[in-house]
Amino acid sequence: MRTVTDVIDPITSGKDGHTMKALVYGGPGQRAWQSAPRPVIREPGDAIVRVTTSTICGTDLHIMKGDVPTVTPGRILGHEGVGIVDEVGAQVSAFKKGDRVLISCVSACGICESCRKGMYSHCQTGGWVLGNTIDGTQAEYVRTPHANTSLYHLPAEVPDEAAVMLSDILPTGLECGVLNGQVKPGDTVAIVGAGPIGLAALLTAQFFSPAAILMVDVDDNRLQVARQFGATTLVNSSDGTAVARIMALTEGAGVDVAIEAVGIPATFDICQSILAAGGRLANVGVHGKPVELHLEKLWDRNVAITTRLVDTAAIPMLLKLVKSGKLQPAKLVTHRFALADIMKAYDTFGNAAAERALKVILTA
Amino acid sequence: MRTVTDVIDPITSGKDGHTMKALVYGGPGQRAWQSAPRPVIREPGDAIVRVTTSTICGTDLHIMKGDVPTVTPGRILGHEGVGIVDEVGAQVSAFKKGDRVLISCVSACGICESCRKGMYSHCQTGGWVLGNTIDGTQAEYVRTPHANTSLYHLPAEVPDEAAVMLSDILPTGLECGVLNGQVKPGDTVAIVGAGPIGLAALLTAQFFSPAAILMVDVDDNRLQVARQFGATTLVNSSDGTAVARIMALTEGAGVDVAIEAVGIPATFDICQSILAAGGRLANVGVHGKPVELHLEKLWDRNVAITTRLVDTAAIPMLLKLVKSGKLQPAKLVTHRFALADIMKAYDTFGNAAAERALKVILTA
Amino acid sequence: MRTVTDVIDPITSGKDGHTMKALVYGGPGQRAWQSAPRPVIREPGDAIVRVTTSTICGTDLHIMKGDVPTVTPGRILGHEGVGIVDEVGAQVSAFKKGDRVLISCVSACGICESCRKGMYSHCQTGGWVLGNTIDGTQAEYVRTPHANTSLYHLPAEVPDEAAVMLSDILPTGLECGVLNGQVKPGDTVAIVGAGPIGLAALLTAQFFSPAAILMVDVDDNRLQVARQFGATTLVNSSDGTAVARIMALTEGAGVDVAIEAVGIPATFDICQSILAAGGRLANVGVHGKPVELHLEKLWDRNVAITTRLVDTAAIPMLLKLVKSGKLQPAKLVTHRFALADIMKAYDTFGNAAAERALKVILTA
Amino acid sequence: MRTVTDVIDPITSGKDGHTMKALVYGGPGQRAWQSAPRPVIREPGDAIVRVTTSTICGTDLHIMKGDVPTVTPGRILGHEGVGIVDEVGAQVSAFKKGDRVLISCVSACGICESCRKGMYSHCQTGGWVLGNTIDGTQAEYVRTPHANTSLYHLPAEVPDEAAVMLSDILPTGLECGVLNGQVKPGDTVAIVGAGPIGLAALLTAQFFSPAAILMVDVDDNRLQVARQFGATTLVNSSDGTAVARIMALTEGAGVDVAIEAVGIPATFDICQSILAAGGRLANVGVHGKPVELHLEKLWDRNVAITTRLVDTAAIPMLLKLVKSGKLQPAKLVTHRFALADIMKAYDTFGNAAAERALKVILTA
Repeated sequence: MRTVTDVIDPITSGKDGHTMKALVYGGPGQRAWQSAPRPVIREPGDAIVRVTTSTICGTDLHIMKGDVPTVTPGRILGHEGVGIVDEVGAQVSAFKKGDRVLISCVSACGICESCRKGMYSHCQTGGWVLGNTIDGTQAEYVRTPHANTSLYHLPAEVPDEAAVMLSDILPTGLECGVLNGQVKPGDTVAIVGAGPIGLAALLTAQFFSPAAILMVDVDDNRLQVARQFGATTLVNSSDGTAVARIMALTEGAGVDVAIEAVGIPATFDICQSILAAGGRLANVGVHGKPVELHLEKLWDRNVAITTRLVDTAAIPMLLKLVKSGKLQPAKLVTHRFALADIMKAYDTFGNAAAERALKVILTA
Repeated sequence: MRTVTDVIDPITSGKDGHTMKALVYGGPGQRAWQSAPRPVIREPGDAIVRVTTSTICGTDLHIMKGDVPTVTPGRILGHEGVGIVDEVGAQVSAFKKGDRVLISCVSACGICESCRKGMYSHCQTGGWVLGNTIDGTQAEYVRTPHANTSLYHLPAEVPDEAAVMLSDILPTGLECGVLNGQVKPGDTVAIVGAGPIGLAALLTAQFFSPAAILMVDVDDNRLQVARQFGATTLVNSSDGTAVARIMALTEGAGVDVAIEAVGIPATFDICQSILAAGGRLANVGVHGKPVELHLEKLWDRNVAITTRLVDTAAIPMLLKLVKSGKLQPAKLVTHRFALADIMKAYDTFGNAAAERALKVILTA
Repeated sequence: MRTVTDVIDPITSGKDGHTMKALVYGGPGQRAWQSAPRPVIREPGDAIVRVTTSTICGTDLHIMKGDVPTVTPGRILGHEGVGIVDEVGAQVSAFKKGDRVLISCVSACGICESCRKGMYSHCQTGGWVLGNTIDGTQAEYVRTPHANTSLYHLPAEVPDEAAVMLSDILPTGLECGVLNGQVKPGDTVAIVGAGPIGLAALLTAQFFSPAAILMVDVDDNRLQVARQFGATTLVNSSDGTAVARIMALTEGAGVDVAIEAVGIPATFDICQSILAAGGRLANVGVHGKPVELHLEKLWDRNVAITTRLVDTAAIPMLLKLVKSGKLQPAKLVTHRFALADIMKAYDTFGNAAAERALKVILTA
Repeated sequence: MRTVTDVIDPITSGKDGHTMKALVYGGPGQRAWQSAPRPVIREPGDAIVRVTTSTICGTDLHIMKGDVPTVTPGRILGHEGVGIVDEVGAQVSAFKKGDRVLISCVSACGICESCRKGMYSHCQTGGWVLGNTIDGTQAEYVRTPHANTSLYHLPAEVPDEAAVMLSDILPTGLECGVLNGQVKPGDTVAIVGAGPIGLAALLTAQFFSPAAILMVDVDDNRLQVARQFGATTLVNSSDGTAVARIMALTEGAGVDVAIEAVGIPATFDICQSILAAGGRLANVGVHGKPVELHLEKLWDRNVAITTRLVDTAAIPMLLKLVKSGKLQPAKLVTHRFALADIMKAYDTFGNAAAERALKVILTA
């Protein structure tokens, strides 16, 4: 076990020897809100951001279970955040100390071939690194690499609580689910999984005016939330008849778009079984094992199956919609905590079904 | 069991009691070039076409093995053909007796929701029916339903032998492989399977000027043909190292487009293993069983996997390219037979590797 | 030469010698609600529809002024309608007597190269013919050519009044304005002209969630209606400062999409003057003379200018949205008349500004 | 007139007081190959490149006529070049001294909203500045701003002479002409103007396999070159019958794509007069005055007219095609000079018709 003494050395390597508080991963099942060295500029493209608002992602829970091998003990978690720029490196031209910024969960150099295509998630020197391979945003300060193309200026009209939903969850629902699924006006869309990501897909699918949105989950509470968020039909899939019921609801045709927002074989299987000819299956869920793809049924069905790690290329568009009032991301917020109470926030979020938790807000 | 006597009646129900010769499927492993009733107009949208040129498809071999349950004994096979319109039904306005026409392998009503989208393969009253659920083109005459939107006028500049390659194989390679794979200038494309369909994908991929086309097969003869058809790199996959070699050839990046043109798990697996981030896997092969899709590796790779039954919506475009000399489909023809020698043609085509057969032409 | 007596014959040559009442164009400024021969099937693709609901289009007013030379005296006007199929020709397979149908303003054969692309407006044997080169829908009965692909089955949930808005005006606003303008979530859109067509563009632009919709017109009443229909900013252009104000409102950037919904040089000029770099100008207005295109300013601005005659290819999608309640086309209806009172309806519609008329409904 | 003494001061402000030779614009009709201060890093994003190969653009001739008011006397011209990086500023992470690079004619920050969309031409702090508002590439050294996203590493397989064609002319023909014109397999394309830009469009249009490419010009020599470059039909437009002949050649249909590569009303007018329904007019020419757009004929023709300043976003794709041998840009080179002989090169290029000059290569 680490002791306070052990921690002294790294702390003194922080900015001017300053320390801060941060949520530190200690290995599977181990986390602590503890002192850590305040981050300093390491690369000329870095910025240091004082975090004013953060949140917890389902991925953080996966990390806590030890499911994400790139995250090693000692890592500060968190890849979502809003804050105030505190310091910038020599290559940072787009931001200066005092700027209020949104932190993308994906760091993008803006130069490499992937970034040129807007596929920031596969940036050769970035991608999802925050709270993964480098320290993250569940802390008083965070170092953000490639700041020029990984931070976003926040208009005054966009409050922190709305903005922080744009770090990851709303771009994920939109890009991986809705845009990859090519939702179009008049479409019938099924979203399998009514957790925060599925609800983000639900909110953003409505940008394109589908005629029907079927929400599929095993939890009636979540389905009721989906109803309030715009789902037109609720399908509780716990009895194993979801596929049959959806096919009946669509008069045997199936759905134009199926969005997989869970990440297990069973939910993927529902999606592939309800696709109309010409349909699109947009996978959003993080999968830990292979699935069986029924090509013997699908080879002649003119379908597309897509995967994507969020690029957050849609952040500027989402900011415009929040600013104009067309999108209210704060709908997703169910609980609020002081950042210093993050240990309690993790408990609440980790018990989401019972707590009826969607997103928890952490305010510094 | 049917007796010779039984067969007399249907024959006499042909046009004016006329008979014709046709290749009739008699159940797994059974086929015969025999007399059959000459087809007559049954629906007002029908045309009767006198077949001048036909060919044999890999699917016909699958049928002969009993792998296609919709094909029942007594069926005249064949879904590719060129001919002369002999008679038209009351609803046929676009063609008249004497017109030289290409017969699409897909019959499309042009009215239903699928047809309105150009997804003719899923026409509610058509799709792939010729040589499947109704009698086909390996005969002296064929009845073609929905003639207005399933036949195509042939310009004089396009000879039968080139045209018949547009009934199925070239649209299949193009639509299911190249268009679904979104081949773009500068792309690196891998085509797994150098049979006729893979070669059709190879020919049509070049419409979009990829920088490299890697052809993957277990047969060196076929690979040499691919070289002549424009492949830039040949990969014999028989030793199981194809994936490793392709990754090395692409400096670890993988390919932009992988076209699966075989239809078995092993070749699908090669395709999913060599996809670059952002890549597209276009499945063309007809699969008889599920495949294992490695979503645990692909969920964050921004890939798309597509399936498609050919719509032949690209026939007008292909006709323009043949007419202008930009495409020479007859390259695919390796053997020529009289239609009356179709039994021999089947033997040759069924032994394609040894015979070095690609497409066999049958001339009436 | 024809005499009055001569004219009796054609009337009695209607179906079984029956006559009907219809709005007949008699040359510029001349129209009458008079007897006319009831239409009969002429081509096997025809249907005869008993009109239950019709309406008047701005184009009908242009015709009345003599501005549309293809319309000759004696023509029954009207290209929008809903009705009940009364009789079908031999080639009509998709509809039968008694079916309740929407009549597209565009007749499409479904077979020619244009129709295959969904560009029904340029059908080689159709296009806009109803109430133009053949008799139209402002009558008790109408003959509709190419019925299979020019009529649409109406679900019971869609009332006549809503449906008739899908014959022309809503597809026009959507296809020519919104789809051609590629309206995207977050965009800033300007619609110049708040008449029925501009309002149709306004209603359908919201399918794609723009952040701002600026409505430009000289009539404050119409602008107020636009506000109720979802416009976020109103610009009265009567004082000549519209361009300056729009540029100021967009902080000098200009708009992403400008939709021209009037058809005169002055409004086109506003549109080309407010386009952002990368913007799209979608022309919807019917123009009678050339405009000056400022290529000396626009050549390096990465803009697109589009034109389109409505194809009504979007009718199926619009029907889904009406059926699901996502679109309420009846909002456009301001006045209702019996079909027999159509002369009065023309007076009202022809005096739209004073009458605050948008669309007038005619019920048989 | 300037004297040598006058020039001394600026020269001493060069790197370490070093001077170099450069082509300096002295006002309309005035240019000189003279000493100039060697450029130094001014912004941290800058690189200094030693030019090894440059060329002259038609725009440089426009500048020499005084037609480009942003270019003021004293400016070093040139916006195309290949060279070796000599020095980089503190923000340049992608290049280092000694790297062999292609210089884009467009400088792009990679950060602003335009750059995020790949619309580098409208970069808020870049765009076309080289040889325009800052000193250019017709010199021994050039300062390139935003080097990270405005220079491109050159593979050894791509010689200077080929590479320098990718600074401007090939991306311009491709992006402004071919991509904006959406050239597709089987299309009929007309290119009006067979100068270097028109020929660049001709070369790159073939990436997409059109069935026919009609080349239109008044100069038979240029048309003969076009034939060698792949044009299928030549139309000398000097007798004023080009429109009629093209309509006849297309059997009255018109062309799918018309690319305007001259920049005057007469050639724009040819383009708008030959567009098929559904066609695209891609303007590439630099226009100095308005054109008359015949909306009274085009409003219902479903056409698109596009403009674009080259973004050079296609450079990576073009590099792949050159590297693979699919594109031979050096075809465009007709004359070669030492950089020190640039005054003579200007004379040759300025007399292009008589000299049969396309692109002139300048080698340092």
